[in-house]
Amino acid sequence: MADFALRPVGRVESTLVALSEAPRQPDEGAPDAWLVFDPACSPALDGLTPGADVLVLTWLDRADRETLAVHPRDDPARPLTGVFATRSSDRPNPIGLHAVHILAIDGARVHVRELEALDGTPILDVKPVLTPRR
Amino acid sequence: MADFALRPVGRVESTLVALSEAPRQPDEGAPDAWLVFDPACSPALDGLTPGADVLVLTWLDRADRETLAVHPRDDPARPLTGVFATRSSDRPNPIGLHAVHILAIDGARVHVRELEALDGTPILDVKPVLTPRR
Repeated sequence: MADFALRPVGRVESTLVALSEAPRQPDEGAPDAWLVFDPACSPALDGLTPGADVLVLTWLDRADRETLAVHPRDDPARPLTGVFATRSSDRPNPIGLHAVHILAIDGARVHVRELEALDGTPILDVKPVLTPRR
Repeated sequence: MADFALRPVGRVESTLVALSEAPRQPDEGAPDAWLVFDPACSPALDGLTPGADVLVLTWLDRADRETLAVHPRDDPARPLTGVFATRSSDRPNPIGLHAVHILAIDGARVHVRELEALDGTPILDVKPVLTPRR
């Protein structure tokens, strides 16, 4: 199968700089952060508003793409589990999926609450939250 | 910013073959479909079970990546809106995000309920569903 080229549309600006400090889930202490978009992408932001909840897709560029199974939460007591059944960042296509709340928007910079992504992480996409199936 | 190369891990097998037939949302008539994974990725599936709800990430390879704003649902009466505030498949990185229910698993083939993706769509990733923030 052919490869496809992702083109980052921005970067995360965060006080989180070391992988060892990164929380595994946002409610485990992730800081508020800025999504800094390429100004050329500004028209794509039109319609986003403070107070909205959105999904941010990132490229977890420190991840190991050869990993197919992990012990969840690095706990050796937990059985080895396929990465598609876990939230491990190590996976063939390490796309991060983050539900965030928009605090403020300043031009092509979007301030969001509690984002568990390292400073410099490439941003791929932003989407409205999923609506419940039924 | 550097590009990143996605490597598809499988393909969607569906009776949906024409874009004109594709529903905009799964509850608008999407058929059940198969996720057919590259056998080399089988270890990544370990832990997925029938009855589970998962998120499937796809690459919407028919999308227009230059589009930054759209009239939602192609309705000209709706104001032009940035693609990051819509579910348009046309966007800089056309990653599809689909919440599906697993009906059955047969080796590296996973049968899912109501998937609004065309036959042949590349699969990038599978993740557990997002847990509510609070």
